Amino acid sequence: MFIPTLREIPKDAEIASHQILIKGGYMKQHAAGIYSYLPLAYKVIKKIEQIVREELDKIGCSELLMPALQSKDLWVESKRWDAYGKELMRLKDRHDREFCLGPTHEEIITAITRDSINSYKKLPLALYQIQTKFRDEFRPRFGLMRGREFIMKDLYTFHATEEDLDQWYLAVRKAYIAILDRLGLTYRIVRANSGQIGGSSSEEFMILCDIGEDEIAYNEEGTFASNVEICKLNEGDPSPDGIGVIKHAKGIEAGHIFKLGTKYSEPMNLNFIDIDGKKKPVIMGCYGMGISRLLMAILEQSNKDFKVVWPKSVAPFLVHVIPMDKNGEIGYDIYMQLQAMGLEVLYDDRNETAGVKFNDADLIGTKYRIIVGRKAAEGFIEIKNMATLETAEWAISNLKNYSFV
Amino acid sequence: MFIPTLREIPKDAEIASHQILIKGGYMKQHAAGIYSYLPLAYKVIKKIEQIVREELDKIGCSELLMPALQSKDLWVESKRWDAYGKELMRLKDRHDREFCLGPTHEEIITAITRDSINSYKKLPLALYQIQTKFRDEFRPRFGLMRGREFIMKDLYTFHATEEDLDQWYLAVRKAYIAILDRLGLTYRIVRANSGQIGGSSSEEFMILCDIGEDEIAYNEEGTFASNVEICKLNEGDPSPDGIGVIKHAKGIEAGHIFKLGTKYSEPMNLNFIDIDGKKKPVIMGCYGMGISRLLMAILEQSNKDFKVVWPKSVAPFLVHVIPMDKNGEIGYDIYMQLQAMGLEVLYDDRNETAGVKFNDADLIGTKYRIIVGRKAAEGFIEIKNMATLETAEWAISNLKNYSFV
Repeated sequence: MFIPTLREIPKDAEIASHQILIKGGYMKQHAAGIYSYLPLAYKVIKKIEQIVREELDKIGCSELLMPALQSKDLWVESKRWDAYGKELMRLKDRHDREFCLGPTHEEIITAITRDSINSYKKLPLALYQIQTKFRDEFRPRFGLMRGREFIMKDLYTFHATEEDLDQWYLAVRKAYIAILDRLGLTYRIVRANSGQIGGSSSEEFMILCDIGEDEIAYNEEGTFASNVEICKLNEGDPSPDGIGVIKHAKGIEAGHIFKLGTKYSEPMNLNFIDIDGKKKPVIMGCYGMGISRLLMAILEQSNKDFKVVWPKSVAPFLVHVIPMDKNGEIGYDIYMQLQAMGLEVLYDDRNETAGVKFNDADLIGTKYRIIVGRKAAEGFIEIKNMATLETAEWAISNLKNYSFV
Repeated sequence: MFIPTLREIPKDAEIASHQILIKGGYMKQHAAGIYSYLPLAYKVIKKIEQIVREELDKIGCSELLMPALQSKDLWVESKRWDAYGKELMRLKDRHDREFCLGPTHEEIITAITRDSINSYKKLPLALYQIQTKFRDEFRPRFGLMRGREFIMKDLYTFHATEEDLDQWYLAVRKAYIAILDRLGLTYRIVRANSGQIGGSSSEEFMILCDIGEDEIAYNEEGTFASNVEICKLNEGDPSPDGIGVIKHAKGIEAGHIFKLGTKYSEPMNLNFIDIDGKKKPVIMGCYGMGISRLLMAILEQSNKDFKVVWPKSVAPFLVHVIPMDKNGEIGYDIYMQLQAMGLEVLYDDRNETAGVKFNDADLIGTKYRIIVGRKAAEGFIEIKNMATLETAEWAISNLKNYSFV
């Protein structure tokens, strides 16, 4: 396993999660807002992606993959080529034809569906992708929070009626809740602005976090929440729905769901013949979720003073074995036993001091840490639950009965 | 499931697999050499990717994900910025800094590793990614065969000695054989030119196919093979290794493995301190495999006259249920039973004629087809094995005893 940890905290990393990702060998920066996900981070990314897939497939969505390169023509059709501004990365091919690198895929998905959705019988339809997106931020910062190349899940739904859109919107909203719950996150759902994407109404999923870039307001029960910029609510006011009083917090936007209506289908001629025989524009919804940003948000909520404990659902490893026995034989044997038990185990076979190994282990953030120390020769190891900080002296012969949960 | 099949064969698709992919609703073209993988194709792609992952992980490789955007500086260091020519897609960011879209990632992987591989103790190392790549082909053609945006697996290995590179090269070669065998492909391994990537020696994995773009030579046992351009072998000559006589064929290049040596590590200063205390350049290998191209190669070998039967390892579905009973109730019940048996089943609930359904089923290419016809009311269905063309009249009550293998 390639985990190139650093001794120093990188100077240009401003927030804890970013510092941990760089110092802990999770990722490597190549240019402003452009990173490689090294094996440790990519293991977490793949687990997040899998949870997203499972919850979306469960409600009847299908996965596809659209291209990053999008031709100018489509963006002219939707009137976004000029409107989008400098955040849209543009390039010309060898024949001087203009393209952009997709920051979002409403144009492409509309182009895909308009050739085949010709009747109400083909609706509803829900298509999503997990894909690399590009946005040329003026000032990329906070690592994966505001990058220029990032991984996003984008889902698009297609409907014959507003009621059907409403129903699907709620189903996706529930799927988002299920996803964020499985990721172990604390979050609020807030009413939001629709911005560049457009459409009638939208909500954001905000991961609560001191370093969040957005101010949000919510009541004590967490049943009402809103983007402060829109609602101008004051801390301590009674919440509009009458439940408790308003609290304020900062949030990281991890998801944004939109009722698009016909914003794209009308200009781009995505029409269908309805049951009444009339031609109508398809009604659309779109639903984003920042996969790479979620990695960072989880890490913000899963670390305390540079000590990380990943939630089990996305942890790169569950158990970390740190051998301090003479030749590492007992440690390696324990590692093999744990692997045979079907657990994801990391074994630190480096020729480093205990201090270096423990510091790195704090950043790698497994829930269980096994120290194979002086008593190993007598048949005992130390198993530490890093979430509760409980430590057990445990007989090696009894390893299979320890409850790694 | 969104499978927008067409009635006509698209005019600009020149080869069978490309025609099937478009007509069968597997993919959609957006610009020359730029496609969306619709749900049917993306299911196959994900299965190919999973097989690749399993075989590479087995030999000790770790997965990471590098960015598509690569800054000019790195390509100047490796001297490829000028050398690469027009196939390299280039762009400027909003601050006028120059980037390219990666066609390959030697520069980035060298930048990642040169900061952390400082000792022979950290070698060997094997890192791979499955990622979208870009190459601005002058004339994109044959669908996914020669596209401008495509999915590739690229693996890079790092070594202290030539002997270690040789050993790893052989291990990866074996993993490639395991992958192509699991994909059910007929192929030959040929000696090849190193081209743009460079290095001392390389081999190509050629999928045998009439529409292949490369002429290759091999003996009857398939144990010797060579790129004809390099070796100028004549059909019927005795093979140099003395086993049988030379045959000629056309191949699709699905994989290419290289002993890079120090081509990138020397100019880019990827060095390590060896056991003898001396600073030396790291010795590298690199190993590509075209994931999207493999989809097409498998399809070329799995269709006959527009009738497809996907190999089970990558089939989007194993069973296709075509209901022709009055209200589809029996058909739907069978579909539910098969799903409960853990099989991947497609159910055709469209209001189309039997002819349309059978034509589409030929393109979707499940190994088993179940026709719920006139005898369904009496408790019997027709199960057809599309690989052997054997048909069985089968009691619905006995469905769980049919051997779907």
